Amino acid sequence: MTVTVAKGFVAAGVAAGLKKSGNKDVSLVVNQGPRKAAAAVFTSNRCQANPVLWSKQVITDGEVEAIILNSGGANCYTGSEGFQTTHATAEKVGELLGVSAGDVLVCSTGLIGDQLDRPKLLAGVEAAAANLSADNGVQAAEAIMTTDSVSKTAQRASAAGWVIGGMAKGAGMLAPGLATMLVVITTDADLPSHILDSALRSATRVTFDRLDSDGCMSTNDTVALMASGASGVEADPQEFVQLLTELCQDLSLQLLGDAEGSSHDIAIAVTGAASETDAVEVGRSVARNNLFKAAIYGNDPNWGRILAAVGTTSAEFDPYNIDVSINGVSVSRLGQPDQSRDLIDLTGRRVDIGINLNSGSAAATIYTNDLTHAYVTENSEYSS
Amino acid sequence: MTVTVAKGFVAAGVAAGLKKSGNKDVSLVVNQGPRKAAAAVFTSNRCQANPVLWSKQVITDGEVEAIILNSGGANCYTGSEGFQTTHATAEKVGELLGVSAGDVLVCSTGLIGDQLDRPKLLAGVEAAAANLSADNGVQAAEAIMTTDSVSKTAQRASAAGWVIGGMAKGAGMLAPGLATMLVVITTDADLPSHILDSALRSATRVTFDRLDSDGCMSTNDTVALMASGASGVEADPQEFVQLLTELCQDLSLQLLGDAEGSSHDIAIAVTGAASETDAVEVGRSVARNNLFKAAIYGNDPNWGRILAAVGTTSAEFDPYNIDVSINGVSVSRLGQPDQSRDLIDLTGRRVDIGINLNSGSAAATIYTNDLTHAYVTENSEYSS
Repeated sequence: MTVTVAKGFVAAGVAAGLKKSGNKDVSLVVNQGPRKAAAAVFTSNRCQANPVLWSKQVITDGEVEAIILNSGGANCYTGSEGFQTTHATAEKVGELLGVSAGDVLVCSTGLIGDQLDRPKLLAGVEAAAANLSADNGVQAAEAIMTTDSVSKTAQRASAAGWVIGGMAKGAGMLAPGLATMLVVITTDADLPSHILDSALRSATRVTFDRLDSDGCMSTNDTVALMASGASGVEADPQEFVQLLTELCQDLSLQLLGDAEGSSHDIAIAVTGAASETDAVEVGRSVARNNLFKAAIYGNDPNWGRILAAVGTTSAEFDPYNIDVSINGVSVSRLGQPDQSRDLIDLTGRRVDIGINLNSGSAAATIYTNDLTHAYVTENSEYSS
Repeated sequence: MTVTVAKGFVAAGVAAGLKKSGNKDVSLVVNQGPRKAAAAVFTSNRCQANPVLWSKQVITDGEVEAIILNSGGANCYTGSEGFQTTHATAEKVGELLGVSAGDVLVCSTGLIGDQLDRPKLLAGVEAAAANLSADNGVQAAEAIMTTDSVSKTAQRASAAGWVIGGMAKGAGMLAPGLATMLVVITTDADLPSHILDSALRSATRVTFDRLDSDGCMSTNDTVALMASGASGVEADPQEFVQLLTELCQDLSLQLLGDAEGSSHDIAIAVTGAASETDAVEVGRSVARNNLFKAAIYGNDPNWGRILAAVGTTSAEFDPYNIDVSINGVSVSRLGQPDQSRDLIDLTGRRVDIGINLNSGSAAATIYTNDLTHAYVTENSEYSS
């Protein structure tokens, strides 16, 4: 159920002392080949952490030997000293594995603006390298957790004989909570990097990119995919995209379900849009509306807040011809109330919002969480 | 200190029973002339309440006799029945005052999607009309409150012999909290409506439009300005804009200080921007970042969240050449930490964030509040 389910991969997760808690904080995933193909997507935030700046260079040739990840510090806005820490981390991995540092992806997550303890981190890298095993996928997944309450892993298998495995961390996303989203996906399918790249972009566009737990985008987000080819099977690209998308959606919903302090998972399905862009804009606007999110926390089907959020977008619609439903109950049609809000039961964790713009045939679903006391508590007490 | 400080205006505030609490909920402000010039600006939300649809027509000729306001219901997404309620309200005012309904502005505030009780509302209009007095400005200001804890009023006087008075309601703004922002401003200066219009747009652009308490835009926002000319003094337009802007800023900061559940007033001053648009975009992005807002609630100077929010904008800047200060302490410069965050004291209500983009000479300040437990409580329990 994790990154080592695919043949050709070994992993480790160790405690290097970066976290005050003493929990595992350094994770290493190594591709033993025969193929070393890879692809990655990164945060679209313009303020990017040092490991993102580094990894963007590493991925350009489509070849990656290993990925080293640390929790316990974002290594963002730490200047040249921070960049040197990232560089030294990759060099250490390269030295220990006998590969080029330029083929080592680096990821970090934690507080922005603090320097990582470089000696501790490098010692952790040594310990991880000494502990690599095909049995350690679970530990690797645990070592990237920050405010996550559980580790997130998933796998998919093709009848053709190849598999995909993945691990993720993050407590709310895209536009993650304080916790950066880091995802590592491995496959033993035999595919070149340009196929991996297009498959990864296709899959993340409709999965991680449609999670919007709290509207806040991290400086460190990374989703990396590595292929070993160890199954000896050249995967059908279409089937690969399909299973990869399923796996990404699986991990996405695990992130949603564990989002910081949330008590509801909210799916906002926008239909009848003139374009997919419109549908995404409308869904995201509702997902980011604090009044709506607080109402859902209070089990209050306050549908006026949904329409008020829709009204702030530039999507194509007639404001008085929008259908809104909550958990299947049609609460507003043609600019006025429809069924009674008293029919709605919001006591479950899952909430389904339906918004039909009656302006076309495009659709998109955005996933978000409610705004709760626990969210405020967690995010007001993080760095202090 | 309110709308009746200007000569030529009478007002009333009465309890019509629209609010379950029994508090005052119908407010009437009447211009007795000799001039009946007016201007108004409305929410930019595309989903607009019935009174906004009505009032936009009323204001087109620049002449307004009176403004009638109710709290206890937004009259939004209430269909043609709701529009008829707005129309009937204006007709009733017109009948009682002997003026045209087409010269009566209507404002409503409260829950979206519920019909107002028309008989109660019309009876309230009658009571208000019977109670009009130059002494009742305070009651008029009280009758528009919803979640406001105090009524908001302000005045400015010119040495030339004219005054401006105003009242406001709303608990957070533009992009108000659940509580629509309603503002009525009166003056006895003798000015034509086109001067009032340009003055009002100029003043609101740099005051109410730069409040962003919680990023949520109401369907009902209205700022109306009426001039009676009763001072007999033709105001200098430049002085008028200046005093009007001061008055609007005064009311803005009163709204900020009373924003739902807030414990900090946060001024985000963006300087060194390539354009004012860039400065506003950056300030607004920080003002809407829940992680930043929760950190301030926790008295935690977590400056990384400020930079992460800046990084989501399209403003012109080098991400590694932004200066950030909190309450005068320079926390980040040139992409790395500067002074220690431990030097910062966030225990006061006022918080000053400085962001220098080092990309030009434009500037703007956006005002917002922190994200608190009380905000979540108030907004999760509103309609239930």
